[in-house]
Amino acid sequence: MLQDALVSSLKNIATRFRIESIRATTASASGHPTTCMSSAELMAALFFADMRFDPRQPQHPEADRLVMSKGHAAPLLYAMWAEAGFIPRERLTDLRLFTSNLEGHPTPRLPFVDVATGSLGQGLAAGVGCALNARRIGSSYRTYVLMGDGETAEGSVWEAASAAHFHKLDSLCAIIDVNALGQSRGTELEHDLETYRGRWSAFGWHVIAIDGHDLPQILAAYQEARGTTGRPTVILARTLKGKGVSFTEGLPNWHGKPLSREQMAKALDELNAQFVPDSGVPKIAAPPPARPEAAPGNMPAPDFKLGDLIATREAYGSAIAKLATSDPRVVALDADVKNSTFSDKFEAVHPDRFYQFFIAEQVMVGAAMGLAARGAIPFPSTFAAFLTRAADFIRMAAISGVNIKLAGSHAGVSIGEDGPSQMALEDFAMATAQPNFVALYPSDAVSTERLIAEAAAYQGPVYLRTSRPKTPVIYDNGEQFPIGGLKLVRKSDKDKATVIGAGVTLFEALKAHDELKAQGVHIRVIDLYSVQPIDAASLIEAGRQTGRLITVEDHYAAGGLGDAVARAVAPAGLTVTRLAVPEIPRSGKPDELLDKFGISARHIVNAVMNQ
Amino acid sequence: MLQDALVSSLKNIATRFRIESIRATTASASGHPTTCMSSAELMAALFFADMRFDPRQPQHPEADRLVMSKGHAAPLLYAMWAEAGFIPRERLTDLRLFTSNLEGHPTPRLPFVDVATGSLGQGLAAGVGCALNARRIGSSYRTYVLMGDGETAEGSVWEAASAAHFHKLDSLCAIIDVNALGQSRGTELEHDLETYRGRWSAFGWHVIAIDGHDLPQILAAYQEARGTTGRPTVILARTLKGKGVSFTEGLPNWHGKPLSREQMAKALDELNAQFVPDSGVPKIAAPPPARPEAAPGNMPAPDFKLGDLIATREAYGSAIAKLATSDPRVVALDADVKNSTFSDKFEAVHPDRFYQFFIAEQVMVGAAMGLAARGAIPFPSTFAAFLTRAADFIRMAAISGVNIKLAGSHAGVSIGEDGPSQMALEDFAMATAQPNFVALYPSDAVSTERLIAEAAAYQGPVYLRTSRPKTPVIYDNGEQFPIGGLKLVRKSDKDKATVIGAGVTLFEALKAHDELKAQGVHIRVIDLYSVQPIDAASLIEAGRQTGRLITVEDHYAAGGLGDAVARAVAPAGLTVTRLAVPEIPRSGKPDELLDKFGISARHIVNAVMNQ
Repeated sequence: MLQDALVSSLKNIATRFRIESIRATTASASGHPTTCMSSAELMAALFFADMRFDPRQPQHPEADRLVMSKGHAAPLLYAMWAEAGFIPRERLTDLRLFTSNLEGHPTPRLPFVDVATGSLGQGLAAGVGCALNARRIGSSYRTYVLMGDGETAEGSVWEAASAAHFHKLDSLCAIIDVNALGQSRGTELEHDLETYRGRWSAFGWHVIAIDGHDLPQILAAYQEARGTTGRPTVILARTLKGKGVSFTEGLPNWHGKPLSREQMAKALDELNAQFVPDSGVPKIAAPPPARPEAAPGNMPAPDFKLGDLIATREAYGSAIAKLATSDPRVVALDADVKNSTFSDKFEAVHPDRFYQFFIAEQVMVGAAMGLAARGAIPFPSTFAAFLTRAADFIRMAAISGVNIKLAGSHAGVSIGEDGPSQMALEDFAMATAQPNFVALYPSDAVSTERLIAEAAAYQGPVYLRTSRPKTPVIYDNGEQFPIGGLKLVRKSDKDKATVIGAGVTLFEALKAHDELKAQGVHIRVIDLYSVQPIDAASLIEAGRQTGRLITVEDHYAAGGLGDAVARAVAPAGLTVTRLAVPEIPRSGKPDELLDKFGISARHIVNAVMNQ
Repeated sequence: MLQDALVSSLKNIATRFRIESIRATTASASGHPTTCMSSAELMAALFFADMRFDPRQPQHPEADRLVMSKGHAAPLLYAMWAEAGFIPRERLTDLRLFTSNLEGHPTPRLPFVDVATGSLGQGLAAGVGCALNARRIGSSYRTYVLMGDGETAEGSVWEAASAAHFHKLDSLCAIIDVNALGQSRGTELEHDLETYRGRWSAFGWHVIAIDGHDLPQILAAYQEARGTTGRPTVILARTLKGKGVSFTEGLPNWHGKPLSREQMAKALDELNAQFVPDSGVPKIAAPPPARPEAAPGNMPAPDFKLGDLIATREAYGSAIAKLATSDPRVVALDADVKNSTFSDKFEAVHPDRFYQFFIAEQVMVGAAMGLAARGAIPFPSTFAAFLTRAADFIRMAAISGVNIKLAGSHAGVSIGEDGPSQMALEDFAMATAQPNFVALYPSDAVSTERLIAEAAAYQGPVYLRTSRPKTPVIYDNGEQFPIGGLKLVRKSDKDKATVIGAGVTLFEALKAHDELKAQGVHIRVIDLYSVQPIDAASLIEAGRQTGRLITVEDHYAAGGLGDAVARAVAPAGLTVTRLAVPEIPRSGKPDELLDKFGISARHIVNAVMNQ
């Protein structure tokens, strides 16, 4: 199509985007029409003059990606896919209905959405992951991220900016819709494009500043971005919120407000008058043909020796390295603690699939989400305590249902001298709160390696917790650890209580078992390696057979193993005695802390004896 | 003291800092000596030639503040306070012992620590809060933040950088120890001070780049920072990790590793040879005299009308505005949602104590921590879902025990059409996991206002959850809501179950009560406005009297009201039937979602009838 004809067509497409955004939000009596209106030209040109994709097959592996980081512009995204023919246009006014997948903010219930957005500032990190995946599979697909200007206040955006520069992601293009209006007031930088330029340049990006309503400028910017090598590009687009309608354009107090029926009628009159003669919708550029990805092989069985002392964090490092050798989809992400989490064992074998994010947990998790959405099986790992830094990303990963495998090391007071800031004591509360998260907690090297294989084979978000201290191998290499199971580690007909532990506390329970046995008291010991889903039937059976359930965990009392077991057994009328860390801990030696904070063998013995 | 004499004294102080850092970490056989060694001159000059403070009274309200953001340099901080005379020098080797407050990373168990550090990238946000507090009380104290170079990868640093510029905090000075080595490898930018300069300049800071081991340059930099007005200053100090000892200086693989006894002997020989003749320790500059702060008055009683429809989020906005009128310590912080949380009511009355952070929740919470540490009573508020963005700050707030009052609005599926990304369904899991957090959940306007007053009067961290929908006033204005209590809202002698709700579900419970009563079935209804601490005795009494406890909550099943009640009543052998949101929800109308996700009156009726 010649440039003038193209511009006319795109102008009309942008006008239709505005009309549909207004119609849908007015129909729903909620939503953000003016947020959509500022981005209309940017998105018309992107979809119909730049991106290569197949509108009948949004998940095509070679197709360019669009992450709508400003998720409240969902009606615009839906209008784009209607214009491309994927969504029937008449369905757009089902926006936000319970019966429709056209939700208030985009979720992967829609096949053209890679990751859920709506918590601002996350899209660029996901875009980093999509772009890294292109490199992984050797594809030339490009990744675009549409961001609002307000969300660039989020630190996660600058983590992603820095990471994209470090990884030289020239296939990544951020588009910032600088409409200068936030939700409750003007943005901090309003239309000060020069300050934006300074910041993005300082973070190593190629910067293009344009008028975001000027289609020739937009087309030139996409062209320039496509030709930029060695670094990512950001397009700073000066726009007006509510553009195209006289009583919304550039005006405050319109954020998140649909037009009334009367206002809509007036707005549509104005917009309909803006159509120009055109030559139809431009043909969308097709992606290159999809190529088959190498099939994963089988991971060899564990090869440990009973009794050997190996920290589960170390077994984690070996396991992901081994897994990656048999499965090309497996990648690892680090936040400058690879020598503590032992993910450096992965890097040593598969440096090309090991991504460094320095001390920036949000972009590490966000990039993992993007990688997972594009077919990789990412293992981002850091200290479990510092995964809380990415709690909102983890929340959105749950909403997205993405296939990430988070691993947190250095759990609990058993890390010892470093003190409470480094101790994860609320990580299970965070992970198990998400109803679709799997939460795993191995105790020895064999179970760690088996659970890594299980986590990789499972489709969906997984959290795996490892520990700092060395613990003995207690399982045979052939032992299986299916998700949702548990292990009866000690059992007799005379058990008067069941003690449920995992990780370091399993070994305290075994010590307590032996001490009690010497006194003629028998207890059952359960290794609850799968905290969520949980084997409720076996726990109830153990509770009924032994009369008492006692949990012991290197975690605060709320949200950990005790609560998980209690929820599982409550329908059977069973209650749980909980041993957990009762207060903010402090520095000390690992064994000393287990004892001082009430989760050592001595306390288990007391709990069994003093009912 | 003349410059040359001063430099000699400071050089020797820096050498002593190195010696003490090595001695303490070798004694503890853990810790980060080389991290301390790179900052030694920077801290010697800061404490003994720039800062104004009283070493006998670290919490002096007019004293300059130092936030040790690189918390793993704790041994250096302790050596500084030993040199200043506050810590007996012979105690320094108690580092990391359970019996000592000289923990692995600094916590406010030590009176010279305002906020706990050790989760990197948080100190600058706290420093923003300290600096805002100086403005609040009209003090000229200055705030210094010592950061590692690695931690500037954290997005929270850039949130804080942007906020400090926006608020024109010229009393804030960041010092970045650019030693170029992270934990597991070189930092991203290594010694590239020009790129650092570009980034900080772009964020509006005055930048001074120096050799961080050159004392005259350091002294000049502090002088220049002190004279800079209208914007904060960052000192970029090129240093060498492990400086001063031949076999650690500038070398990798020394992070977090103490020297062996033999290595220590060699290192101390080298360091002892570096002493020069000096004229003693320079006198520390005293702060101006403390001034009494205006005493808080009493907040007037609520003034609502029974039956009036008022969302608790709106009552929150009115309440904090009213509270601030009677108490000058009260401040409010926003992340560009003031018109949704109704904190704009506060801004309208007290604009000088209302701090805008745009869409940046980490710095909002971090600044609140700094404000609280310096005597303010901060109410940072945003959508409860977006407080998860600051989960790691909340974790560190718990470790710090700071007096912050977090408020999260738009809880649960009852927000409706916006969809899951905007729904907080794990906020109680996050807040109640911290054992020293108070967690409150008002249901009507009267209880909201009372709980705000309770939260302000309580010394320690508080989380308060509010809701989007309007709910009727059900309590008399004179009703009291002590922390740790609950309300029996419906009670009879014939109750066959107790239904426990809060927020929107309390009204579903009341509806269920009326429907059941019409069928001749009586239930007790409890308003669990204080989720943590919790009134276990009353819950157990209700359970025993009525036979059944049923919780109903607009929260996921894990970590919310159900778990809190179950933990409280388990010692009495009671179990809990839980109604909670069982899966990732979706967009829809509020009432429709309450019903579809199992927490409406209909489901309560079913739960009561089908036991």
